[in-house]
Amino acid sequence: MKNLLILAICLLNFSAVAVAQKVTSPNGEMQMQFELMEDGTPAYNLTYKGKPVIKTSKLGLKLKDDEHSLLNNFEVIEREESSFDETWEPVWGEESEIRNQYKELAVILNQKSTNRQMIIRFRVFNDGLGFRYEFPQQQNLGHFIVEDERTEFAMTGDHTAFWIPGDYDTQEYDYTESRLSEIRGLMEESITDNLSQTSFSDTGVQTSLLLRTDDGLYINLHEAALLDYSAMHLELDDENMIFTSWLTPDVTGNKAYMIAPGQTPWRTIIVSDDAREILASRMTYNLNDPVALEDTSWIKPMKYIGVWWEMITGKSSWHFTNDFAAVKLGETDFENATPNATHGATTKNVKRYIDFAARHGFDGVLVEGWNVGWEDWFGNSKDYVFDFMTPYPDFNLEEIRDYAKSKGVEMIMHHETSSSVRNYERHMDAAYQFMKDNGYNAVKSGYVGDILPRGENHYSQWLVDHYQYAIEKAADYEIMVNAHEAVRPTGIARTWPNLIANESARGTEYQAFGGSKPNHVTVLPFTRLIGGPMDYTPGIFEMDISKFSPNNESWVNSTIANQLALYVTMYSPLQMAADLPENYERFPDAFQFIKDVGMDWEKSLYLEAEPGDYITIARKEKGTNTWFVGNVNGETPRTSKINLDFLEKGKTYVATIYSDTKDAHYKDNPQAYNIRKVVVNNKSKLSQRSAPGGGYAISIMEADKSETKGLKKL
Amino acid sequence: MKNLLILAICLLNFSAVAVAQKVTSPNGEMQMQFELMEDGTPAYNLTYKGKPVIKTSKLGLKLKDDEHSLLNNFEVIEREESSFDETWEPVWGEESEIRNQYKELAVILNQKSTNRQMIIRFRVFNDGLGFRYEFPQQQNLGHFIVEDERTEFAMTGDHTAFWIPGDYDTQEYDYTESRLSEIRGLMEESITDNLSQTSFSDTGVQTSLLLRTDDGLYINLHEAALLDYSAMHLELDDENMIFTSWLTPDVTGNKAYMIAPGQTPWRTIIVSDDAREILASRMTYNLNDPVALEDTSWIKPMKYIGVWWEMITGKSSWHFTNDFAAVKLGETDFENATPNATHGATTKNVKRYIDFAARHGFDGVLVEGWNVGWEDWFGNSKDYVFDFMTPYPDFNLEEIRDYAKSKGVEMIMHHETSSSVRNYERHMDAAYQFMKDNGYNAVKSGYVGDILPRGENHYSQWLVDHYQYAIEKAADYEIMVNAHEAVRPTGIARTWPNLIANESARGTEYQAFGGSKPNHVTVLPFTRLIGGPMDYTPGIFEMDISKFSPNNESWVNSTIANQLALYVTMYSPLQMAADLPENYERFPDAFQFIKDVGMDWEKSLYLEAEPGDYITIARKEKGTNTWFVGNVNGETPRTSKINLDFLEKGKTYVATIYSDTKDAHYKDNPQAYNIRKVVVNNKSKLSQRSAPGGGYAISIMEADKSETKGLKKL
Repeated sequence: MKNLLILAICLLNFSAVAVAQKVTSPNGEMQMQFELMEDGTPAYNLTYKGKPVIKTSKLGLKLKDDEHSLLNNFEVIEREESSFDETWEPVWGEESEIRNQYKELAVILNQKSTNRQMIIRFRVFNDGLGFRYEFPQQQNLGHFIVEDERTEFAMTGDHTAFWIPGDYDTQEYDYTESRLSEIRGLMEESITDNLSQTSFSDTGVQTSLLLRTDDGLYINLHEAALLDYSAMHLELDDENMIFTSWLTPDVTGNKAYMIAPGQTPWRTIIVSDDAREILASRMTYNLNDPVALEDTSWIKPMKYIGVWWEMITGKSSWHFTNDFAAVKLGETDFENATPNATHGATTKNVKRYIDFAARHGFDGVLVEGWNVGWEDWFGNSKDYVFDFMTPYPDFNLEEIRDYAKSKGVEMIMHHETSSSVRNYERHMDAAYQFMKDNGYNAVKSGYVGDILPRGENHYSQWLVDHYQYAIEKAADYEIMVNAHEAVRPTGIARTWPNLIANESARGTEYQAFGGSKPNHVTVLPFTRLIGGPMDYTPGIFEMDISKFSPNNESWVNSTIANQLALYVTMYSPLQMAADLPENYERFPDAFQFIKDVGMDWEKSLYLEAEPGDYITIARKEKGTNTWFVGNVNGETPRTSKINLDFLEKGKTYVATIYSDTKDAHYKDNPQAYNIRKVVVNNKSKLSQRSAPGGGYAISIMEADKSETKGLKKL
Repeated sequence: MKNLLILAICLLNFSAVAVAQKVTSPNGEMQMQFELMEDGTPAYNLTYKGKPVIKTSKLGLKLKDDEHSLLNNFEVIEREESSFDETWEPVWGEESEIRNQYKELAVILNQKSTNRQMIIRFRVFNDGLGFRYEFPQQQNLGHFIVEDERTEFAMTGDHTAFWIPGDYDTQEYDYTESRLSEIRGLMEESITDNLSQTSFSDTGVQTSLLLRTDDGLYINLHEAALLDYSAMHLELDDENMIFTSWLTPDVTGNKAYMIAPGQTPWRTIIVSDDAREILASRMTYNLNDPVALEDTSWIKPMKYIGVWWEMITGKSSWHFTNDFAAVKLGETDFENATPNATHGATTKNVKRYIDFAARHGFDGVLVEGWNVGWEDWFGNSKDYVFDFMTPYPDFNLEEIRDYAKSKGVEMIMHHETSSSVRNYERHMDAAYQFMKDNGYNAVKSGYVGDILPRGENHYSQWLVDHYQYAIEKAADYEIMVNAHEAVRPTGIARTWPNLIANESARGTEYQAFGGSKPNHVTVLPFTRLIGGPMDYTPGIFEMDISKFSPNNESWVNSTIANQLALYVTMYSPLQMAADLPENYERFPDAFQFIKDVGMDWEKSLYLEAEPGDYITIARKEKGTNTWFVGNVNGETPRTSKINLDFLEKGKTYVATIYSDTKDAHYKDNPQAYNIRKVVVNNKSKLSQRSAPGGGYAISIMEADKSETKGLKKL
């Protein structure tokens, strides 16, 4: 009897009262239901085509030093329903027009015990759900500290997840594919070394997280418009398969400092029964504000090379001299120091890259290690680590600037901050002005190592504010930003399109740090790229690093054809050809694809996709009638079958197909590729095998008769 | 036998080996002896006129994650002896010329176990000893973290100390006079409430610390040139009466992040058997670098009034409206908010102050609460708390600017940062430019409340760097800085004379927060003022605060005559007349002294001094033949006897003497003063009684016969 009674009370407590309200997506397939539980806890659930996606999940925030928090005891005082439909044109992107269509429900809650109001705003799109907490201006709620955000995402089963370990400082991990129930057991081995890392739980994972259910659904959990708040991770209760939001703390353990009026970022759930639709979703951008810049004409996609891979692989060095155990900027005498003979950013070497860029039509050249301070830049918790203005003696900034200009090539600035963000902010105005004065219009910024102010984390509110400050400050100077090691993007580039790329994931550099999983690039578009483009730096042709950097035994786990395909599959308005010029010169025919491939797109079609296995995307270049197709493949060889019916009817094209040879393999035969030119039209079908870690790339250009002469039909 | 053996080992360990070296001050009275102990620990002792001042005291630094540290195992590899004598002219000061004369010993040490070098540089002046640690550039020592500085100051007995509790965030405490052995028992009651405070020990005290020995010595312990290091406190071993340096930690507990080449601040010991010589010491300035500015013509002493005391006392408010529980700068609509009717910084009120300043010849008017953000500025850990640019709707900046200019009065800007230093640094350039654009040449900055970045302390290296950044940045804009709640000064104004004042102690405001000890001002010149001028904001004429601010029961523990004397005894190139104009208008005769008193001095004579009891100082104004004398008195009534032999021989002067009446008392009769004019010359002697918490002030102006007519001789 006693046990029964307890059960009954529990049921009462957790059963929803009759204030539930449903909102359905414009196409009727996605349905969110909001409800208030018995104790006044807000909750929601989500279904897609009638299938449960998110079971009833609680919503709310635990506040610091506040006995009531914003968790329960709420009543609904008003509901506002609306619908929205507009089409907007991104400054750059995977397509020239994006439709933003949703139905909205804003539930205005009053906490009875405190008379405080909170709004939960839901937007139900055809491709998913976004919701956020809003705190209107009111007398009873001004400043408050979020101790924990308690947003739940209750899973319907033990799904398959593509996850990386939850971490306050890095996302540079390989993805693990496992059941949710297996995460705990796989956590330790998933946490590989990083220069700054702070994991928090055996079942904590990062967003954007991709899940696949046994009944054929694909679910992406992430956030949109992360501004003035800390980044959200997900902590899994692996008994009940419930994810709860886990925010990045600051140095004192607090998660976010909030002011009413204000709001959290959007929590996003993208859902489909077709993996391709996850890639096609624009919900994350749609939940961000429209562009904040009046003039965006200075923002331009760029294809670039850089004095970079030679340092990453260990062939060259960022630093100039070995004379000093420590450097004091403004005091250390570099002019009279002994050069170390390995410095990469020399005037001579940079000019070689400029020549190469000009010869092959690249827009820009990035140079790292150009400025003084690299001798002791890392691991010393050094505050005044770089001044972003003073070149090494062997880097003649004026000469290089003028030489690049004469060759029609733009220089890309590098600002490694060593995570000393006060120092960066102090120098920011002068450094950006210095860039403009010297013709630099884009900056790659870096946040390697532990954060200063000490104790802060890469993904805490303090740093989120900093990255945003840098983006907005750069916009003042009409500078494009490519931020590495910053917080992963959440669609902010819609508002600030000068954020042309981020790293914020395990990029190609890890192929020179021991290698990444060959299927890594079949996961990233489902996860990291949901929030915005990645400066993945593809294009590696020499997989055996030791060939040019004898002490580095790393092997790039990819075929050349796979590397080419990445320019299509890993969308970014900023694309690097990362390998050394001398490696490209050995494979001029394959290199042609990198030279040809588009950078900005009118249309993108997601032809085939299965996370962890393969992705095939076709994109039509903006302003031309040229298409590019990319296929990346995981561990298992596979034959891709695609239909070229996206081509304009009645037109003839020449397709140049860069593919793996039959015996190609990322492990032992990565440079085995075929290039064939064939005639295609909108009735053509392609059946193309991809090797393990392989893929294919195709350029499809409209052709007249003279150009198709002698070519076979596909 | 066993006990004897242990004793013998101890003696061996702590006895000095025969590498001792003595250095004597230019006049032979001060003698420092350096020695290396048996285990290679550096040590020193100090005598004055043959009397021991500092017993053998160890030197060294404990490093983080470094088993050897820089504590022992040293050998002397070189000694450099030199002497120095120069006279320099401060931009402003207590005298027009300062002699910097010392003998120097630099001991170059090598740590045998690590082959690392450290230099200890000693400078022996006639008035004391300064020494610091230096770390030359070397291969074996680059970056290092100071876990603890272990500099000892071994006292010779249970001295009397004038101390305030050691604290990482505030010095705004009343001084306690006690034996060293009594500190522990008095600590708790000495720690009064402050808006940000972090004490660390029952026997930890702050510098600058004044000690008096039973054999008649006065000793001041402090530091000079605190740059890029954390502020030093002193931790007392009250069994052995040994002080050890206790640095302010950062958020992670580390004390300082160091780079070789580099050095610590100077540790200073000022000694005399005459208390007046402590006040006359310029050793702290002498240990700082010469002026770093090429042009200092824009730095000018200022006498000012301000819209300030009315807020401090609670009569008015800094904030403009009560409409908002929280404010978001740039979003909150102040234009349509309801004014609260108590806002002090209204155009009308400010004009009243400008009129008053112009009428009475003041240089400037400070206005606090002029800019938006005061509604929620404190206690909310608010990052973007002020923008330093946007006035409240009832503060017409342009109108006030033009009005002040038309009246020949300068406006003084107020930048309260609420200790959100990232926010301040982000706005600094724009805010300083805004000041210059609107004719403001001086800024009062404030650091009330806990520091952001969170977890940092007011006196940690991060903040020391910030205050210095602000000083140097202000100098770029030719702006004078008066920093409140910043780290206490250490003579840096020699190098950066645009730092015209600091608060960094318990100022007059505490008289409106419940009162300060009546003898407080007889201690400050021996302690806080050793490092530089204080914006003490004297000049209170209405001691009963409740007369104009009914809810404030505070009583100013001082007589009017004492208040006048402060303009002489509390040296500062920035002097406020802090009381309300209406209070001054009730006592125009006493107010005359504030109007007359000089601001910059050719010469200062310390006529009488005993810490805690009385101070009498005479100063000759720069560029005139006018002298001003001030006497402040503690709890006990006392008759001061001074000799006017400093006056120019053969000349006649009129002295206006502002003194306490016989029945004056800070507690119940503070406004009882006499003013008398008498004729004096260099043979005159004055015997003048001062009341408890009283004092006297004298202006002595050269006079011709017509001016002395009818006046008595002293």
